[in-house]
Amino acid sequence: MNSTIETILNHKSIRKFKDTAITHHQLDLIIRAAQQASTSSYMMAYTIIGITDPTKKAVLAEVSGQPYVKDNGHLLVFCADLHRPTKQASEEDFSQMTENLENSEHFLVSAIDAALAAQNAAIAAESMGLGICYLGSLRNNLGKVDELLSLPKHVIPLFGMAIGEPAHGPDRKPRLPKQAVYFENEYQEHDESINQFDEQMATYYQSRSSNNRADTWTKQMHRRFAKTIRMDVTDLVQKKGFNKR
Amino acid sequence: MNSTIETILNHKSIRKFKDTAITHHQLDLIIRAAQQASTSSYMMAYTIIGITDPTKKAVLAEVSGQPYVKDNGHLLVFCADLHRPTKQASEEDFSQMTENLENSEHFLVSAIDAALAAQNAAIAAESMGLGICYLGSLRNNLGKVDELLSLPKHVIPLFGMAIGEPAHGPDRKPRLPKQAVYFENEYQEHDESINQFDEQMATYYQSRSSNNRADTWTKQMHRRFAKTIRMDVTDLVQKKGFNKR
Repeated sequence: MNSTIETILNHKSIRKFKDTAITHHQLDLIIRAAQQASTSSYMMAYTIIGITDPTKKAVLAEVSGQPYVKDNGHLLVFCADLHRPTKQASEEDFSQMTENLENSEHFLVSAIDAALAAQNAAIAAESMGLGICYLGSLRNNLGKVDELLSLPKHVIPLFGMAIGEPAHGPDRKPRLPKQAVYFENEYQEHDESINQFDEQMATYYQSRSSNNRADTWTKQMHRRFAKTIRMDVTDLVQKKGFNKR
Repeated sequence: MNSTIETILNHKSIRKFKDTAITHHQLDLIIRAAQQASTSSYMMAYTIIGITDPTKKAVLAEVSGQPYVKDNGHLLVFCADLHRPTKQASEEDFSQMTENLENSEHFLVSAIDAALAAQNAAIAAESMGLGICYLGSLRNNLGKVDELLSLPKHVIPLFGMAIGEPAHGPDRKPRLPKQAVYFENEYQEHDESINQFDEQMATYYQSRSSNNRADTWTKQMHRRFAKTIRMDVTDLVQKKGFNKR
């Protein structure tokens, strides 16, 4: 197994960072790595905003509810950006473009473009010994984040990423068995693998070093979906000109 | 610079593969790498389908319009999967869950989860000397792909990935200048970088080894958005129980 695959398989989300800023060189490599990801039809339909202003970090930490959004080596916000590819169009051309631009196909394109770039950034950071944590929690109040970063129409925040020197060593979190997520030629209902995973997770949650409890993956998922969350995402997204048709 | 970052920065989409299947060991590492990606709230909201049936490959190649969807070392289809996390729920609990499940927040969650997994797969493959190409072109006829793979409700195909031994060595495609995609603390309109990139791309398109033409990035984007494409994605996505509210 080569060192790249070792880095990938060794991933753990880091939620406690040392009080050391990452270097300019590290940041430069992380952003260059992000940029080299594949992109749909060459759109590069994303923008990355690095947050260095402590006041802005504090607001984002409040939105997220997580202290490591404030206390880390660097904080990135990944945005879907369909504004850049349509800049410099005449008013008439632009109004013709909006039907295509604002459909759910291009909502998908920009979200996927941003995610591919982000995962390259994550792997690049981890390959240098840094830790990362994705922050979907910025979507707790997408409108606030959008305003804070002064995003124009056709640009929306999707998620953040905290980066820095790890200050803890969490357990590597198990994944579903391969049989439950990878199939050949058609979808299969592989309940057996999920049950097996639930048993494994029951043991994991009872025995792990912190926050141990009686739980399974399936129970956790059912609790998650029983709560109605982030129903306001739709409105903000559409107000900004995404996912409208 | 370490070898992982070298692999990432060296990415080129490969569109011509040798007639050699990837090995079971390579495939196993690629899927394990995909599975270790970060996942929103531990949902692992994606499924990967490997296509080995030549008839199915031929149908997907027709949908995509690309010969390398048929002729490669392996073909993966990445799907958003919100079915697995809500399995085994009682009918009553499930009907309560659907409001949350079917909102655009969870459409985003599953698309991002799938994309993070896919990019890990891509980097793992490239680190072993294989080439890859993403296939957003499967969304040319999402309904057909959905049916072909027998995907249940709350599972939709998002994109494919062709993998294999490269049979050509394309140029590394330039990216927008860092100044155009990375900002500090707030969004900036960095038109100067985009103009500079347009000039660079005009030279690139005139001088590259194949398919040379007079073009710029901005012109290419404007042409892309002038055509209305994939307006049927919305209907299929909603019919399958995604992005409904």
